[in-house]
Amino acid sequence: MAKYVLIHGAWHTGAELEPVASLIRAMGHDVQTPTIKGNRPGDAKTTGLAEAIESIIEYLEETGAEDVILVGHSYGGMVITGVADRVLHRIRRLVYWNAFVPNDGESLLDMGLPHQRAAMEALAAERSDGSIILPFPVWREAFINDGDLELAQRAYNALNPHPMQTFRDKISLSTNPADMQVGKSYINCTEDIAAPHSHPWHPRLSEKLGLFRLVQIPGSHEICFTHPDRIAQAVIDAGRD
Amino acid sequence: MAKYVLIHGAWHTGAELEPVASLIRAMGHDVQTPTIKGNRPGDAKTTGLAEAIESIIEYLEETGAEDVILVGHSYGGMVITGVADRVLHRIRRLVYWNAFVPNDGESLLDMGLPHQRAAMEALAAERSDGSIILPFPVWREAFINDGDLELAQRAYNALNPHPMQTFRDKISLSTNPADMQVGKSYINCTEDIAAPHSHPWHPRLSEKLGLFRLVQIPGSHEICFTHPDRIAQAVIDAGRD
Amino acid sequence: MAKYVLIHGAWHTGAELEPVASLIRAMGHDVQTPTIKGNRPGDAKTTGLAEAIESIIEYLEETGAEDVILVGHSYGGMVITGVADRVLHRIRRLVYWNAFVPNDGESLLDMGLPHQRAAMEALAAERSDGSIILPFPVWREAFINDGDLELAQRAYNALNPHPMQTFRDKISLSTNPADMQVGKSYINCTEDIAAPHSHPWHPRLSEKLGLFRLVQIPGSHEICFTHPDRIAQAVIDAGRD
Repeated sequence: MAKYVLIHGAWHTGAELEPVASLIRAMGHDVQTPTIKGNRPGDAKTTGLAEAIESIIEYLEETGAEDVILVGHSYGGMVITGVADRVLHRIRRLVYWNAFVPNDGESLLDMGLPHQRAAMEALAAERSDGSIILPFPVWREAFINDGDLELAQRAYNALNPHPMQTFRDKISLSTNPADMQVGKSYINCTEDIAAPHSHPWHPRLSEKLGLFRLVQIPGSHEICFTHPDRIAQAVIDAGRD
Repeated sequence: MAKYVLIHGAWHTGAELEPVASLIRAMGHDVQTPTIKGNRPGDAKTTGLAEAIESIIEYLEETGAEDVILVGHSYGGMVITGVADRVLHRIRRLVYWNAFVPNDGESLLDMGLPHQRAAMEALAAERSDGSIILPFPVWREAFINDGDLELAQRAYNALNPHPMQTFRDKISLSTNPADMQVGKSYINCTEDIAAPHSHPWHPRLSEKLGLFRLVQIPGSHEICFTHPDRIAQAVIDAGRD
Repeated sequence: MAKYVLIHGAWHTGAELEPVASLIRAMGHDVQTPTIKGNRPGDAKTTGLAEAIESIIEYLEETGAEDVILVGHSYGGMVITGVADRVLHRIRRLVYWNAFVPNDGESLLDMGLPHQRAAMEALAAERSDGSIILPFPVWREAFINDGDLELAQRAYNALNPHPMQTFRDKISLSTNPADMQVGKSYINCTEDIAAPHSHPWHPRLSEKLGLFRLVQIPGSHEICFTHPDRIAQAVIDAGRD
């Protein structure tokens, strides 16, 4: 039995990963799906990246987690990198799933293109509480492109406004991911076009891990909704020794 | 029931898309496969791009088509872009299938490499009627690489000489594809090596669509012959709302 | 019935290709899996590239092989290129399987990145007999990423120290692969991360073949261990006329 902690992406909570988690549990493993600070009901949308990371460190310490396979989806890659830099002794392997891989001093927005950053800031400026919401057409075409319209709408309704500051904050690391002394895997869904097309998740971000294991499967950025069985198996293949 | 109009690529007619069309019809949809001017029996091989585009606009107007999912394969991407620029009110969504995506003032040859353009012009110079024929070895290795030799030969025999001028003519558009106010999808067959290898169909051409939906499937440029079932399903997934 | 000769990669012998060979034989073909000089039990680990190539030319001549589909895996691409340059009349088609494709004057190390070359030389310097051994973590994560740990260890135990000089020697060719007058195919396993991630096998190396047929399948560099059925079918699809 292996122990998995799945860290969701922006606009999500741990609840959206439950269908994936329950499939991994059915294979005999222990799986937890905590929600990052800033995405929990009632959290201030002014939450920054350090607080977000701290909330998962606290979760691991409170639950006494050891030997954890820590999986981060998308924005969750920022969080698991920060967590690993602080409590590496609790972690057996890091699994990035179409996730951002930051080096010391980089923000999530630093890994996108200038015109995307501007578009994100314009969206955030439309709201007054520090959060950003993804327009439905972007979600439908570029995030959940392998689902039908009904599923796209149902999944969209489950999202929560995301704290924009977590995208702007530059991460502070004592060790960059390539130098972290732990096993690392990258799961790449091959139809994921949520990253800039000419700057894809793999290999642009994956190669920042140094030596890593690649697992690829067909699917969009939101495969947790469209094919939970496929991503559950990929997490197993990426997480095993 | 959705309405599909499938626009074939160079050297083809609508007839070669019938196996795909009949599979989509079997799923309950209306599908038409007109042949572009220049590829119909008896057409002058001096036909240019503007005439080719005009012939499909006329087809849509004569049939009173509305709410059409307009699908273009390869060279057909030039045609559907020109059609959309003129009669966007008849179109529900544009689907590019390993297709060229031109901006205003670009020709199909402008999207290739200089040595390919020279090779194409050399082939066209071998003939006196304005047409170009693809040599069988190129067809067999780089267009229908996922079929066996018998299928490759049978499909080759169905081809017609293509009017070279349609490759040279620069398209005239009032609006570039990225700015067209309509849903857009790109189907990419992952073993399609008919485009220059270091300048692949996706993302080099797909990203000219702006916001678009990606659908990817295994297959060569000529998947309409080798796996009509697979491309029929991809057209459905790309064409739905 | 077609005749296949499968040429293994570095650290391997022909024996590791037997599971693939027997599947191809079961489809009615003749398949041989000779071992390159330098990898046979008792061979000097100071063997260079010219001797390695010569050993396969001798094999083809001694067995009177004609009309051969010559398949090279990884380092085996260096060998089949050198063989084809010398005895092209014995060859029906060349099949490169995640293989190096050298032009005249290039070594295998010339096709990697400078930091990789340095890492390889450092590994070779640890040994006194001219050979190089791959560290298990690199093998497990970057070569056999689609297998489980037990298979990764079992396969690792079958490897033999590889003669480093075969990686350093620049090949001498009278004709570069793109100009060889023979059919050529490239099999690319899509999860193969043994090559530098930003310089992948396909299209960086494949396009050196000129006109070629692409066959792609899911799998790691060591698919001969993890999915012999899948690579056997790919060899058939790549090797047929």
